[in-house]
Amino acid sequence: MDFFEVVKKRYSHKERFLSDVVPLADLERIAQAGIEAPSGVNRQTVHLIILPDRASIDPVCAVAPTCGLETAPAAIAILTDSTITPTENAVNFEKEDYSATMENILLAATALGYSALWLDSPYFDLEKRKEATAILGAPETFNLWAVVPIGKPDGEGSRREKLPFSARVSYGTYGTTM
Amino acid sequence: MDFFEVVKKRYSHKERFLSDVVPLADLERIAQAGIEAPSGVNRQTVHLIILPDRASIDPVCAVAPTCGLETAPAAIAILTDSTITPTENAVNFEKEDYSATMENILLAATALGYSALWLDSPYFDLEKRKEATAILGAPETFNLWAVVPIGKPDGEGSRREKLPFSARVSYGTYGTTM
Repeated sequence: MDFFEVVKKRYSHKERFLSDVVPLADLERIAQAGIEAPSGVNRQTVHLIILPDRASIDPVCAVAPTCGLETAPAAIAILTDSTITPTENAVNFEKEDYSATMENILLAATALGYSALWLDSPYFDLEKRKEATAILGAPETFNLWAVVPIGKPDGEGSRREKLPFSARVSYGTYGTTM
Repeated sequence: MDFFEVVKKRYSHKERFLSDVVPLADLERIAQAGIEAPSGVNRQTVHLIILPDRASIDPVCAVAPTCGLETAPAAIAILTDSTITPTENAVNFEKEDYSATMENILLAATALGYSALWLDSPYFDLEKRKEATAILGAPETFNLWAVVPIGKPDGEGSRREKLPFSARVSYGTYGTTM
């Protein structure tokens, strides 16, 4: 699909998914696009865990159920390895790294005809984050940021309203319009 | 251009740019893709400033010169409005918002045949950040994250090596391969 069409089509699917299986090859293409995102100082802190079926999603979902994760036929967990960033005076890019990877994953899912969601809120709770990280078998030194449900949407899915271009883009200096 | 081709083609252009003008319509398409990125709680904290020529880039570049910004025929500054996030107990998504917008901008530039760079390091220095923000005419309550140089590259441009898929992606649980 054309890049600009993909960007336009992407939306945050906050509703239910159909149970149609997502072929593993599609999940791998989505994950590949994710790891092709840039990372600060090329540290590549992001690690992805593909959850290709309900058996792998259910235990993670149980920690913090949402209607997306409860119904999605597939998901991808996004973590970063905090040990990669040198500790002394180094800028930590884990949040930027994960966010750029996330955007590629959301767009790639859209390009293949799926819906997806930037689902991070369950893991703001540090206890739940820790629990889900353990279920995913990741070291305690990893940060779990999000588990992205992926699949065919059950219905249209709502869209959030966006501010117009003129409210969000200036020319030359802030507030200058064309 | 096909989405997956764009993702594969994108790279961090750390070298010089040619002086060929980037048409304003292209910069607007790139900015439009940027603001179409998702944002936390749809707060749309990101504001973009298109710098369409050297006259608008030079003063910003003078604060923290890099060979990219010194030669690029165009650039886009990425800021967030910190006053949009409710202060009381609200999760701040400005870094995620800017990073997702950044990734869309880098990909959109690539889709239109340009090179670009996630250039944030000059603004880790809070004094320089403050100075550049003032030059851009943005309120002090805005955070300046990056100024992205955009243009035709002067030469191939180096590429960073990436870890293989198997080192960055697991199946079901961390460390499980197929």
